[in-house]
Amino acid sequence: MRERVVVVGAGFGGLFATRALRRADVDITLINGTAYHLFQPLLYQVATGILSEGEIAPPIREVLKNQDNVDVRLGWVRDVDVNAKTVSVAGPGIDYTVGYDTLIVSAGASQSYFGNDAFAEHAPGLKSVDDALELRSRIFNAFELADLQTDEDKTDRWLTFVVVGAGATGVEMAGQIAELAHRTLPGQYKHIDPHRARIILVDAVGAVLNTFGDHLSTRALRQLHLLGVEVELDTKVVGVDATGIEVETPRGHQRIESMTKVWAAGVAAPPLARRLAEATGAGTDRAGRVLVEPDLTLPGHPEIFVVGDMMALDRLPGVAQVAIQGGRHAAGQIKRRLAGRETGQAFHYFDKGSMATVSRFSAVASIGRVRISGFLGWLMWLAVHLLYLVGFKNRLTAVLHWAVSFLGRGRSERVSTLQQGFARAAVREYGDPFTRERAGAGKAT
Amino acid sequence: MRERVVVVGAGFGGLFATRALRRADVDITLINGTAYHLFQPLLYQVATGILSEGEIAPPIREVLKNQDNVDVRLGWVRDVDVNAKTVSVAGPGIDYTVGYDTLIVSAGASQSYFGNDAFAEHAPGLKSVDDALELRSRIFNAFELADLQTDEDKTDRWLTFVVVGAGATGVEMAGQIAELAHRTLPGQYKHIDPHRARIILVDAVGAVLNTFGDHLSTRALRQLHLLGVEVELDTKVVGVDATGIEVETPRGHQRIESMTKVWAAGVAAPPLARRLAEATGAGTDRAGRVLVEPDLTLPGHPEIFVVGDMMALDRLPGVAQVAIQGGRHAAGQIKRRLAGRETGQAFHYFDKGSMATVSRFSAVASIGRVRISGFLGWLMWLAVHLLYLVGFKNRLTAVLHWAVSFLGRGRSERVSTLQQGFARAAVREYGDPFTRERAGAGKAT
Repeated sequence: MRERVVVVGAGFGGLFATRALRRADVDITLINGTAYHLFQPLLYQVATGILSEGEIAPPIREVLKNQDNVDVRLGWVRDVDVNAKTVSVAGPGIDYTVGYDTLIVSAGASQSYFGNDAFAEHAPGLKSVDDALELRSRIFNAFELADLQTDEDKTDRWLTFVVVGAGATGVEMAGQIAELAHRTLPGQYKHIDPHRARIILVDAVGAVLNTFGDHLSTRALRQLHLLGVEVELDTKVVGVDATGIEVETPRGHQRIESMTKVWAAGVAAPPLARRLAEATGAGTDRAGRVLVEPDLTLPGHPEIFVVGDMMALDRLPGVAQVAIQGGRHAAGQIKRRLAGRETGQAFHYFDKGSMATVSRFSAVASIGRVRISGFLGWLMWLAVHLLYLVGFKNRLTAVLHWAVSFLGRGRSERVSTLQQGFARAAVREYGDPFTRERAGAGKAT
Repeated sequence: MRERVVVVGAGFGGLFATRALRRADVDITLINGTAYHLFQPLLYQVATGILSEGEIAPPIREVLKNQDNVDVRLGWVRDVDVNAKTVSVAGPGIDYTVGYDTLIVSAGASQSYFGNDAFAEHAPGLKSVDDALELRSRIFNAFELADLQTDEDKTDRWLTFVVVGAGATGVEMAGQIAELAHRTLPGQYKHIDPHRARIILVDAVGAVLNTFGDHLSTRALRQLHLLGVEVELDTKVVGVDATGIEVETPRGHQRIESMTKVWAAGVAAPPLARRLAEATGAGTDRAGRVLVEPDLTLPGHPEIFVVGDMMALDRLPGVAQVAIQGGRHAAGQIKRRLAGRETGQAFHYFDKGSMATVSRFSAVASIGRVRISGFLGWLMWLAVHLLYLVGFKNRLTAVLHWAVSFLGRGRSERVSTLQQGFARAAVREYGDPFTRERAGAGKAT
């Protein structure tokens, strides 16, 4: 029987580990909770109506269709038995167990509310397709609802958008909401001027894009101001409810009235990380990530690799490149062992740099010691993302959608479903008049 | 004050009525439950992964952005006071009332289960974006789940698709599911061969595309057989549950084991139709549609027009052209009155023909006395739909998606959210491991 490699998660870590093993003499089982790989760095474009969800989420089976040694399985890994070497999986309506010789765990991370999980309902994060569609619905419908109000205070509340967290995702969201308000939507409403919208970006630290260094941070801040984004730094969020957000600023306590809040502030590892740590005696960091050995394995378990956002090592950031390179490292170790070579090599991360788009035609990029901002940075962003999308084929439509949004003013993908956002609450209350009569119909006068 | 025209619903009827009034000296309020117009005839392509929902649902404000005399408002019309001449509207979190001088009601129709509303949970219809995404999730995940089963009977059940109703929508859905099973998905699964999938199209009447006439009906039936679709005619559905469907066939009672059922069998007018009929003394037909006067107004209320799928007149079918022409007729009557000319003209429907795609490169079309089928019919289908999409701009991506699916084998838009389909049930049971730990996490062993 061939070596059995089980890969948990088809994000960047799991997918690139799997691809790196395509010519290896192993049987791979790749388990993921959805049938698609998700390109998380572009989720903000789905949330703001630029791209469709299909454009950033190719089916895993399509991506791997020429790789014969992989069995793609739908399901969520609930636990790992490190002694019996099995993972137990919950599929929709079917539970199953898969045995492994080597295990690569790359189950990602989720949004963290730092112990305030009640914030989640009022300030969704941006980690999944569901999150992006939820935010898309809230953002576009906020303008619709602002237009309906007769009370100016309520109108203002609907036209105030707060983004919590000024890392790449937060900066990109704030920038895109500002472009919506100032470029796409003006002229389309009878009772409001979308220019009135306030977009407020808050962060507990003293700089935007903190990890990019002073120079780019300053550039990004200036660009955000040009876009009309209000940036509140050294500002800690202490409360989030349906109609606003409470913050501690350097000037004291303050309440911001806002119906639409976006949470882009922190990450937490999934429950599986804690289980693995408990079973193997590995530690976890504050975010619940597993402290791995230098070769990305767990203590006493050279057959278990943890890669990507779930792992903690040398304070590496939770970015795609760390996951990709970690996945490839794990695959490389397996191939070395199969070739009879020594294993246990330490993982060395090669920092290819990081980038964030502040608005169309303007991005900041940090590559080694080089700092690029403005239009040149944006061209780099475009080149990198085009290359990525080309790798997954059939993504020509994404380029067209970019043309619509960057060269024109349009947003092609603005649909919200009744299951998302405010409409869901209305359906609960009134029933859905478009499908069939429910209890709510009786409420009409 | 200018004449106030209120239009209820931004489907084909309401949208074309509004556009026809673009140069009229009136103030139009257009009320719709979503911010987008929906091109329902292409919903089946969203459900089967060809198009994104944004491609068939342009924002109403975009479509009307050059029309100054219209105020677009989000909300669901709950009732009409025909004496006070007001409509009462429920928005999400805000109720409001709008007064009218003339009212055009075009609120569409929903799926009808002929009194068996319990079927809806197990056999979604295809009337809204939510429906299409729900079915997309069920169809694609059915193959994923078939691949996970260890019991052959269960595998078969997951690979059996039943479409109820052999009108245009049912034929198109069955054809597309067959193309998925036989062209797109083979070779992507380790444990199943998608070719094994059974696609069964049932209808209580004795012909597919019954309204297209014998010749095209026979052609379509032959094409469906070539695609591998099993067609069960003179077959009445008497039960639908989670794992199957009960039918009365000419050969007796039968149960079909199937996890994925699609309902494309009947339409019912929304509750608003009955309210209007009761308030004005108009009758309704069996489907709850309002029996209108020959000029599309209600008895004794020349200021209220009912158009589209909600109206019953001369047994006109519930198709886009009837709604479009009805909307234009209502607008025309308003313009005549404003010009001081006589009104009350009867509506005359000009039948431009009807068409249905059975599969790629094959459609049937009936135009006046001309009957076209096969590749020529498909070219006509393509031309008509391209023209439509061009009318709404920015829909070049739809053409690219068609190229991917018709010339290639791919389906670009296969994403399902956790809020849809089977995944939703799993989230309920286990919690969502990708966002945060919920009660369900304790269930893991």
